[in-house]
Amino acid sequence: MFTSRPIGFIASPYKSTSEVPKGFGAKHDAEGVLKILPEFARGLTDIEGFSHLFVLWEFDRSEGFELVGTPPIDDRPHGVFATRSPRRPNPIGLTAIELLGREGADLRVRGVDMLDGTPILDIKPYLSSIPFEKLRRGWIAEAEERKRQG
Amino acid sequence: MFTSRPIGFIASPYKSTSEVPKGFGAKHDAEGVLKILPEFARGLTDIEGFSHLFVLWEFDRSEGFELVGTPPIDDRPHGVFATRSPRRPNPIGLTAIELLGREGADLRVRGVDMLDGTPILDIKPYLSSIPFEKLRRGWIAEAEERKRQG
Repeated sequence: MFTSRPIGFIASPYKSTSEVPKGFGAKHDAEGVLKILPEFARGLTDIEGFSHLFVLWEFDRSEGFELVGTPPIDDRPHGVFATRSPRRPNPIGLTAIELLGREGADLRVRGVDMLDGTPILDIKPYLSSIPFEKLRRGWIAEAEERKRQG
Repeated sequence: MFTSRPIGFIASPYKSTSEVPKGFGAKHDAEGVLKILPEFARGLTDIEGFSHLFVLWEFDRSEGFELVGTPPIDDRPHGVFATRSPRRPNPIGLTAIELLGREGADLRVRGVDMLDGTPILDIKPYLSSIPFEKLRRGWIAEAEERKRQG
């Protein structure tokens, strides 16, 4: 196995988890900057041609993991691999963001849901999409439906 | 930072990288099984409600990293963060797969592009899609176009 190392850090408007929008219809349109370390900057070559990126990052302010837990958008427990809980066996977060522009080793992005200072592990081009109408969203759709029915 | 640990291993039809379909129009419809270790099985609770999952896994047969390299689908070099190269600073792979069924701690999936025995780091629900027509695909679209024009 490997030991993670940051390739950079995220500048985000969110200083604590309570500020990050959560729940149904939460909009993730916050802007931020992926500040890549100088020694990894060459790895960004040609990235500006992509409109969207996957960012892999570390839940660095989370400790340990919980196999089953109740997420903020439901009142029922679910398995960690069926949620986006930060308390995971490998504390890796994944966010699809829109690339707005690049200045040197700084990537200006929209769709940030990470805390300020979060270590970035990897960036990959976002290439293909599964059509929304083909997705089944499990307990999340059910929890939405329960909420709708009050 | 953290040290990665496998939550399970992938049973895949591919025994070597040369067998994995690559290049334009490569179909990733191979079936495989995500074999989750017994101690993490409770983390799968309610996962069967989702049609698609993100699988994060480790490039365990790749060594070191290369900031700029020429991918198999082009004859020009690109930055590692603009490609899916296995030789990354953090050797983490990401695949969106379709969940076909669950038997205990085994998830039967379609869309496998990992080698047999690859360590799984994390599983997350695939929830939202960026419409394909909104994606710009950078050098990949350009390389496709060059190939088309022969």
